[in-house]
Amino acid sequence: MPPNPPSAPSKQLHTFDNPAPERDYLIQFQVPEFTCHCPLTGQPDFAHFTIDMICDRLCVELKSLKMYFWSYRDEGAFHEKVTNTILSDIVKVTQPRYIRITAKWYVRGGIYTNVVVEHRKKGWKPAPVVDLPSLPVERGLLG
Amino acid sequence: MPPNPPSAPSKQLHTFDNPAPERDYLIQFQVPEFTCHCPLTGQPDFAHFTIDMICDRLCVELKSLKMYFWSYRDEGAFHEKVTNTILSDIVKVTQPRYIRITAKWYVRGGIYTNVVVEHRKKGWKPAPVVDLPSLPVERGLLG
Amino acid sequence: MPPNPPSAPSKQLHTFDNPAPERDYLIQFQVPEFTCHCPLTGQPDFAHFTIDMICDRLCVELKSLKMYFWSYRDEGAFHEKVTNTILSDIVKVTQPRYIRITAKWYVRGGIYTNVVVEHRKKGWKPAPVVDLPSLPVERGLLG
Amino acid sequence: MPPNPPSAPSKQLHTFDNPAPERDYLIQFQVPEFTCHCPLTGQPDFAHFTIDMICDRLCVELKSLKMYFWSYRDEGAFHEKVTNTILSDIVKVTQPRYIRITAKWYVRGGIYTNVVVEHRKKGWKPAPVVDLPSLPVERGLLG
Amino acid sequence: MPPNPPSAPSKQLHTFDNPAPERDYLIQFQVPEFTCHCPLTGQPDFAHFTIDMICDRLCVELKSLKMYFWSYRDEGAFHEKVTNTILSDIVKVTQPRYIRITAKWYVRGGIYTNVVVEHRKKGWKPAPVVDLPSLPVERGLLG
Amino acid sequence: MPPNPPSAPSKQLHTFDNPAPERDYLIQFQVPEFTCHCPLTGQPDFAHFTIDMICDRLCVELKSLKMYFWSYRDEGAFHEKVTNTILSDIVKVTQPRYIRITAKWYVRGGIYTNVVVEHRKKGWKPAPVVDLPSLPVERGLLG
Amino acid sequence: MPPNPPSAPSKQLHTFDNPAPERDYLIQFQVPEFTCHCPLTGQPDFAHFTIDMICDRLCVELKSLKMYFWSYRDEGAFHEKVTNTILSDIVKVTQPRYIRITAKWYVRGGIYTNVVVEHRKKGWKPAPVVDLPSLPVERGLLG
Amino acid sequence: MPPNPPSAPSKQLHTFDNPAPERDYLIQFQVPEFTCHCPLTGQPDFAHFTIDMICDRLCVELKSLKMYFWSYRDEGAFHEKVTNTILSDIVKVTQPRYIRITAKWYVRGGIYTNVVVEHRKKGWKPAPVVDLPSLPVERGLLG
Amino acid sequence: MPPNPPSAPSKQLHTFDNPAPERDYLIQFQVPEFTCHCPLTGQPDFAHFTIDMICDRLCVELKSLKMYFWSYRDEGAFHEKVTNTILSDIVKVTQPRYIRITAKWYVRGGIYTNVVVEHRKKGWKPAPVVDLPSLPVERGLLG
Amino acid sequence: MPPNPPSAPSKQLHTFDNPAPERDYLIQFQVPEFTCHCPLTGQPDFAHFTIDMICDRLCVELKSLKMYFWSYRDEGAFHEKVTNTILSDIVKVTQPRYIRITAKWYVRGGIYTNVVVEHRKKGWKPAPVVDLPSLPVERGLLG
Ligand SMILES: [Ca+2]
Ligand SMILES: [Ca+2]
Ligand SMILES: [Ca+2]
Ligand SMILES: [Ca+2]
Ligand SMILES: [Ca+2]
Ligand SMILES: [Ca+2]
Ligand SMILES: [Ca+2]
Ligand SMILES: [Ca+2]
Ligand SMILES: [Ca+2]
Ligand SMILES: [Ca+2]
Ligand SMILES: [Ca+2]
Ligand SMILES: [Ca+2]
Ligand SMILES: [Ca+2]
Ligand SMILES: [Ca+2]
Ligand SMILES: [Ca+2]
Ligand SMILES: [Ca+2]
Repeated sequence: MPPNPPSAPSKQLHTFDNPAPERDYLIQFQVPEFTCHCPLTGQPDFAHFTIDMICDRLCVELKSLKMYFWSYRDEGAFHEKVTNTILSDIVKVTQPRYIRITAKWYVRGGIYTNVVVEHRKKGWKPAPVVDLPSLPVERGLLG
Repeated sequence: MPPNPPSAPSKQLHTFDNPAPERDYLIQFQVPEFTCHCPLTGQPDFAHFTIDMICDRLCVELKSLKMYFWSYRDEGAFHEKVTNTILSDIVKVTQPRYIRITAKWYVRGGIYTNVVVEHRKKGWKPAPVVDLPSLPVERGLLG
Repeated sequence: MPPNPPSAPSKQLHTFDNPAPERDYLIQFQVPEFTCHCPLTGQPDFAHFTIDMICDRLCVELKSLKMYFWSYRDEGAFHEKVTNTILSDIVKVTQPRYIRITAKWYVRGGIYTNVVVEHRKKGWKPAPVVDLPSLPVERGLLG
Repeated sequence: MPPNPPSAPSKQLHTFDNPAPERDYLIQFQVPEFTCHCPLTGQPDFAHFTIDMICDRLCVELKSLKMYFWSYRDEGAFHEKVTNTILSDIVKVTQPRYIRITAKWYVRGGIYTNVVVEHRKKGWKPAPVVDLPSLPVERGLLG
Repeated sequence: MPPNPPSAPSKQLHTFDNPAPERDYLIQFQVPEFTCHCPLTGQPDFAHFTIDMICDRLCVELKSLKMYFWSYRDEGAFHEKVTNTILSDIVKVTQPRYIRITAKWYVRGGIYTNVVVEHRKKGWKPAPVVDLPSLPVERGLLG
Repeated sequence: MPPNPPSAPSKQLHTFDNPAPERDYLIQFQVPEFTCHCPLTGQPDFAHFTIDMICDRLCVELKSLKMYFWSYRDEGAFHEKVTNTILSDIVKVTQPRYIRITAKWYVRGGIYTNVVVEHRKKGWKPAPVVDLPSLPVERGLLG
Repeated sequence: MPPNPPSAPSKQLHTFDNPAPERDYLIQFQVPEFTCHCPLTGQPDFAHFTIDMICDRLCVELKSLKMYFWSYRDEGAFHEKVTNTILSDIVKVTQPRYIRITAKWYVRGGIYTNVVVEHRKKGWKPAPVVDLPSLPVERGLLG
Repeated sequence: MPPNPPSAPSKQLHTFDNPAPERDYLIQFQVPEFTCHCPLTGQPDFAHFTIDMICDRLCVELKSLKMYFWSYRDEGAFHEKVTNTILSDIVKVTQPRYIRITAKWYVRGGIYTNVVVEHRKKGWKPAPVVDLPSLPVERGLLG
Repeated sequence: MPPNPPSAPSKQLHTFDNPAPERDYLIQFQVPEFTCHCPLTGQPDFAHFTIDMICDRLCVELKSLKMYFWSYRDEGAFHEKVTNTILSDIVKVTQPRYIRITAKWYVRGGIYTNVVVEHRKKGWKPAPVVDLPSLPVERGLLG
Repeated sequence: MPPNPPSAPSKQLHTFDNPAPERDYLIQFQVPEFTCHCPLTGQPDFAHFTIDMICDRLCVELKSLKMYFWSYRDEGAFHEKVTNTILSDIVKVTQPRYIRITAKWYVRGGIYTNVVVEHRKKGWKPAPVVDLPSLPVERGLLG
């Protein structure tokens, strides 16, 4: 069985046309396989990234997103800085109406660090939200 | 024991009269058994769909909804596109006051994708929500 | 040991005076033991009901509530219809300031259905809610 | 949309030929929709049944099992007694190599009752079990 | 609505005939509503009791069990002692083939205490257990 | 080892000076060890209380709070009434800016009851809340 | 971005040499994306498969395993039968020392069905298991 | 293997320049390893701290934060007081736009205490929040 | 309100007579509030201890156990060493039939360490265990 | 604040003398931060490793274990092969009485792979295990 065609880490993010630009709708990606290293000590860092975005004309192509995240594997990066950089890179190629990135970093020195960054397009406003009642948790039997 | 009367996948969504059109109330369907295939590679995709809707004159009939979802089994469909199409199809036959569709797709390339799309009837506004306090989680014993 | 005095299903809901009518406060009942049957096929249906209510002059008596829910055991009832009917019945005897009923139905045809209905007294408005910060989930040990 | 062909509760359990009688293998059914009533007070009781069985020549047909459980809806039954009766009924029609029934009853008087009954065919012995290591629970991020 | 016939705490445990004495089967009671007080300081203690028993000729009657547990409400009792006493009392009236009592006590001084006591009838041996494979936990979607 | 100095149930709630009256901040107590009895039948009731409060000049002293809750052990109390009474008692001694009490009662007659009561000081208004994004749930491995 | 090289469902299972045949070690695959259809009604069925195996000379190649499971997409298959067939197919190409397959099927008619099948090589015996103590669940803070 | 360079508890909090001061973004630290002692009895207390902050010109350096929390190990501190003090200390060195500290204390006397304190910079206002729909919990298989 | 009588950390473990020495029964303590420091770096370490013991003539007194664990607060201790030492100390004063200590340490350097140590009295053998069937997890409604 | 002394990935595992060689006791390490790459495609793989070991004369030093796992970051490795290699490497330097390694790999192609490998010293036998009753899960309140 031959391997997949060779692929490689890349800072190049691909896009495709938003199939429903007439609506504000949410696309969420969860990327549990992020790693970079600490610029001071060189030791590896790990994180789980969540991207919530409302696209405008362009969507992010999934495979290029995977290779973009891979591209950080050999780079040094501070927690607060890298989360902001990734936000800026996705904003640059897709110009989304809204994007929020959440990075949850593995524990260091007994302390857990999470970083949440967002960007919204100038002039864009979210439609007033329709709050639906949350369903109560039910349980009728014993554990 | 004879089988059920033959049934088949169908794009035909049936409706029935809303039994309480004087109220805005929520109907939620959860459909964990969705599958289609990827239009590029032909490989199967899987997802869990949730439909939250506030009907107007018509409700969606449950059995036809099941066969409608079944109809995607042999079709190719991109994640963002199919979620929008299903929304549009339900809107067309029921003209609901409000509908939101959430699709959670199985992992591909190490990345999880979720898509959330909504539609609201022109001129319709949700009643101001009554926020009830959420009940705190309690636990008095160990583990 | 003699049995309890005979009791029976009943559509009769009893009430008692609200002990604190000067306050808007929440009473929540959870009723995991609901069953009726499907009017088309006669087969049994099961659901979990949650009632959230802010009473006015009258509260619902717990034991009669139990027997009221029991009264559906031999009736046919569609999901959307029965949830609305139960709401209307409780409204009729208690005239609450606010009531919300959530019915979570057991899976049918691979699809889960939940229905949420509410009623509010004319002219009544909820006090502006005091949002308290939700407590973050903490964990310091592994698994 | 016409209803399904009429069906009805029935004590008749159907069987079909075990497709792999040369192996001891486990079939587990979980039946969350059980209800009967208390023979003393007439009030409804609810339970969740789990059936674990290793069949011999015959398997239980799923649809008849559903209608069998439905047949208890209008019968009075003590917790300990009904669990034993259901075991005996399934044993009678399938003569399984092994069967275990677990009934978890909804709380009564502040006390939860669970009953577990089993039967094994004379002379049948379970093959020595192959214990596989259980996978440790892992978690690399915070809550 | 008149109250139930008066009931009262009682050390008297009632029994009834085991409906299936020809089998060794498990009856489990969970009693989350136990309280007594500390004999040294007089302060209230709380616990959750679980009783696992394989009866011989007699079963414990559920309602009397409730009143038996209630009878500890005004007594002083050390954790280790009271768990053993309750075991002895149930053994005395039912002479079970096997019984195990687990008491989980609320935290005191930052330490959680659990006590597990068992009794088996002389000469009784559990049938060799049929180990069924435990079902692996599966999850196909993201959280 | 001698016992602690004798302590006793008491309706007397002690207070101490709020160490940061210049801020609106939240103090939450969770009291899982509450019991009283039903005024009609005399049987014990159990509940878990949560107190959320924003103090003004005075805070509630923890040890007296424990003894206050203990004082209900031998009193009869309806669910709705006792929750309101406890609120009133704490309001009387601390005159808080805001207080909310949530009582979750153990199941009775197959129905779970929860009661939520609140009080706010005249003229006091909560600062506009700073909504922080909630962290998405992540999972990168299988169950 | 060009698609992956075309792939297709296939009954052909590939193997590779076991890199550590001198040891009995466990390989577990979890396949949450299984679907076939019911041979009686033609409706789709869904299941989650878990394969636990101790290989001998050959291991199953992961990508062919994916395509093998895909090959059931357009076939009719009864729950008990298909689980046994998949076991037999993997046994045929790998001749493992031990294999166990667990299939958890989506609910039908309100009943959940799970099937567990195993095969062991003639003459092979599992090494006596080293039981390690399971780690108790701990929690030091409130929920 | 030589030890790390000697480190010590310290009240000195270090800072570094905010890498993205043009945005309001969230940094969350979770510190599960906090301990101090009770000023009345000298006994140890334990807590889990969560810090949510929106920095202005300066961020808190992670390692100094660890040593700052360590510095409370030998100090006496009341729950309400120490939470406020830690807030004030971090405010003093970073002058953040917003900060919220949540302290969850281990149970004492059967009661759990949580304290939540916040500070916001004069004139700073949070951007109107973009509410994203929360993803419904889905489950298609049994337990 | 005066403080409790002064108490202090102590290596002195107190005992009392086993109230049921005629039985082998389990006493489990969970101690979530353990801290010591690393002998190399001086930094604090945290752990959760679980003690499972079957006593012989003597039981461990709860309050002295609390003060014993407190006594490690200012000591340096390696993970493997301190778990063994605590075992030895409890064995010395109680001479139990069986004891097992589980220590779960907070993460260091991205790795979680757990240590489990046990001791059994010479000549003592556990009674053959009565395996009770574990209750299957049930769920009838959607998450 | 200067960085830690430079550290680097290394295949060198350090050991120290077992502080309690007279006992068979368990040391468990959990390593959630493992990554290597696929030797065919070069793409990154991720896994969670658990090491359970009963040491003989030597224990593994924690910091060198961290750097050992780091050393795989730039190596290609098949799932089954690398798990066996890591086992062999730790066996070589510590000659443990027993060791078991569990590797849980992130999903690839929709399939999750877990590998469990073990080694035991010639002639070593685990002491007969003392089975302690597992504590039943309890819950007395609603959700
Ligand atoms: Ca729920
Ligand atoms: Ca359960
Ligand atoms: Ca929490
Ligand atoms: Ca834990
Ligand atoms: Ca896991
Ligand atoms: Ca996690
Ligand atoms: Ca899920
Ligand atoms: Ca999470
Ligand atoms: Ca996981
Ligand atoms: Ca916790
Ligand atoms: Ca599951
Ligand atoms: Ca349930
Ligand atoms: Ca549920
Ligand atoms: Ca538990
Ligand atoms: Ca609990
Ligand atoms: Ca609860």
